[in-house]
Amino acid sequence: MKFIADGLTLSEAVTKVSKACAVRTTSPILEFIKLTATLDGVSLLATDGELSIRKIIRAEVLEEGEICVPGKLFADFSSKLTDEEISLSTGDKGVELKYRDSVSYMQALPAEDFPKIDLEVGENSFTMKAADLKNIIAETVFCCAQDDSRPILKGCLLKFGEVLEAVALDGYRLAVSEAPILSKSSEMSIVCPARTLTEISRMLADGEEITLYTRSGMLMAGADGLTLVSRLYLGEFIKKENVIPGSFSTVVTVNRAELTASAERANILNRGDKNNLVTLEIAEGGMRISSMSDYGNVSEPVGCTVKGRDLTISMNAKFLLDALKALTEEQAVMSFGGAVSPFILTNVEDKHSLYLILPVRNAS
Amino acid sequence: MKFIADGLTLSEAVTKVSKACAVRTTSPILEFIKLTATLDGVSLLATDGELSIRKIIRAEVLEEGEICVPGKLFADFSSKLTDEEISLSTGDKGVELKYRDSVSYMQALPAEDFPKIDLEVGENSFTMKAADLKNIIAETVFCCAQDDSRPILKGCLLKFGEVLEAVALDGYRLAVSEAPILSKSSEMSIVCPARTLTEISRMLADGEEITLYTRSGMLMAGADGLTLVSRLYLGEFIKKENVIPGSFSTVVTVNRAELTASAERANILNRGDKNNLVTLEIAEGGMRISSMSDYGNVSEPVGCTVKGRDLTISMNAKFLLDALKALTEEQAVMSFGGAVSPFILTNVEDKHSLYLILPVRNAS
Repeated sequence: MKFIADGLTLSEAVTKVSKACAVRTTSPILEFIKLTATLDGVSLLATDGELSIRKIIRAEVLEEGEICVPGKLFADFSSKLTDEEISLSTGDKGVELKYRDSVSYMQALPAEDFPKIDLEVGENSFTMKAADLKNIIAETVFCCAQDDSRPILKGCLLKFGEVLEAVALDGYRLAVSEAPILSKSSEMSIVCPARTLTEISRMLADGEEITLYTRSGMLMAGADGLTLVSRLYLGEFIKKENVIPGSFSTVVTVNRAELTASAERANILNRGDKNNLVTLEIAEGGMRISSMSDYGNVSEPVGCTVKGRDLTISMNAKFLLDALKALTEEQAVMSFGGAVSPFILTNVEDKHSLYLILPVRNAS
Repeated sequence: MKFIADGLTLSEAVTKVSKACAVRTTSPILEFIKLTATLDGVSLLATDGELSIRKIIRAEVLEEGEICVPGKLFADFSSKLTDEEISLSTGDKGVELKYRDSVSYMQALPAEDFPKIDLEVGENSFTMKAADLKNIIAETVFCCAQDDSRPILKGCLLKFGEVLEAVALDGYRLAVSEAPILSKSSEMSIVCPARTLTEISRMLADGEEITLYTRSGMLMAGADGLTLVSRLYLGEFIKKENVIPGSFSTVVTVNRAELTASAERANILNRGDKNNLVTLEIAEGGMRISSMSDYGNVSEPVGCTVKGRDLTISMNAKFLLDALKALTEEQAVMSFGGAVSPFILTNVEDKHSLYLILPVRNAS
């Protein structure tokens, strides 16, 4: 194999593809990028077994062939060579990189060792505006579970119907959001890993359209010479209808920026405390937010309108802050069903998204 | 004690003073800031036993007194209150903070527990331009030792003579730089902790003059209501004359940016290798920089003019890169006395600074 490529083009491609390289794996080949040179161009492919990313670049191919190079090292190295033309060829000592008068060698593995990745995933298709997809991902993905105790919760439920509905939950909180679909081949629900959605979001440019393809447990998305394929999670996702309460005894309308500032101050005292506990005391005419720790305590009034019963409720300040940040209007609505029931946050007007948080039973 | 202060003024003062607060100490009081309210204003004082910083701010003092508050917490909290007027007073539950309609409390310790700090350090004085002092600190302090094996090397030798000469060394490399002095009370040498110099550098504004005061093992510097006092290190500092060689067998003049770029590429291969080893092969007409690891090897020619004997020499790439970065001219001069002798780097014209690096004996 031998080809000559523009340094900047190569570097950008390697950086994008290397996002799918495995880190700290028991299977070292997954830390490599597979290079395939054909007369059509050079393909770079990385996979960690779950997520695969391929990018095809133009290059002057002098000899067809394929080889695997260490992903992180190749990314770092090519990022320092953006001004140069690079010649890359296979040789006795691995891969030979030539630029200006210099020659460097990089360890390589045979292409046969690289797992076979099926990039043809085209049974079902869903087309939407890239900006809408980015938005719905940003509004939900932060509520996906981080730990492995229930693997399916590390993914986001995507329900392609009249609109796309996304649901993420981690056992303590839940996010729902909706976005319009331009066209679809059928109605279906999939559970997509949060990491895949984050990478899809990164590859999208506003103003474009994006088509997602699925087939038997796999998802494919492509844009600008980049192809991303991901495994989907299989299994039953928790039904949001079973979690979101239908009636509320206390409804509060509050300035989002003010509550955020007060919650941030209250949260400062929570250093080192994993629960990040803050308490809201809601009564006719207003609300008081407070927190307490060995270091001191904070207690602040927050102006708001209250409808319904008085209520004292405690929660993780981070969950409250995340939800407030994800909403978009000046005012936010908080709807409570009692001190031990989950409560929800929404915008006042634009109700395409909803956040639910489980309260913490306050020991005191 | 009770005073009312502007939130922004208080927050800026707390942030600056808290730089001297101890972290992870066995003496918790050193993590506190001592507040002293008198009719002249409010003084904030922090110390870790070595470095002390005091800032005096204007405030409306309603009741004189003093108290200690937790430094990091107070800094975080006041940084969220920059728009407000804050009332701070001592009460049963510690320190009471009032802003708008809110009341918060913070744990406090009695002022008597705080160590006595002597801020009157005025026997000897040295005045220079702030920009010159900042510069000489930036050019040397990165070569101070990081570990505690020889504590005095964690400081920088400052020699106040005709000019100020600063020397820093960590056993593997050395930096020397000179800066003009405007006036001095006497000639003397002190060894000042690197951390103190970094904090002095931070408090200086270009265009101003700064006076450093010393007395029996202490250094004092002041600017803009801020007073910094530091212990000095006592003991014999290594004489640079015993370390810097006087004659050289090979002298190389090289483009600083080019060598930096090549050394950075060579260093990419050194991931995880503590020595960061790169090798220079110097011969008539040019130089070649190379590195080798399990992952591959890099070998690049670097244009330069060579006077003297051919030489192959290996070194820590980080030390080479740090020295190249600290020099200022387009071309750098590297002077060698053989493969196992320390070599030096300087500018071509402006020789007010000098960097020395010990080579590494290459096993291969």
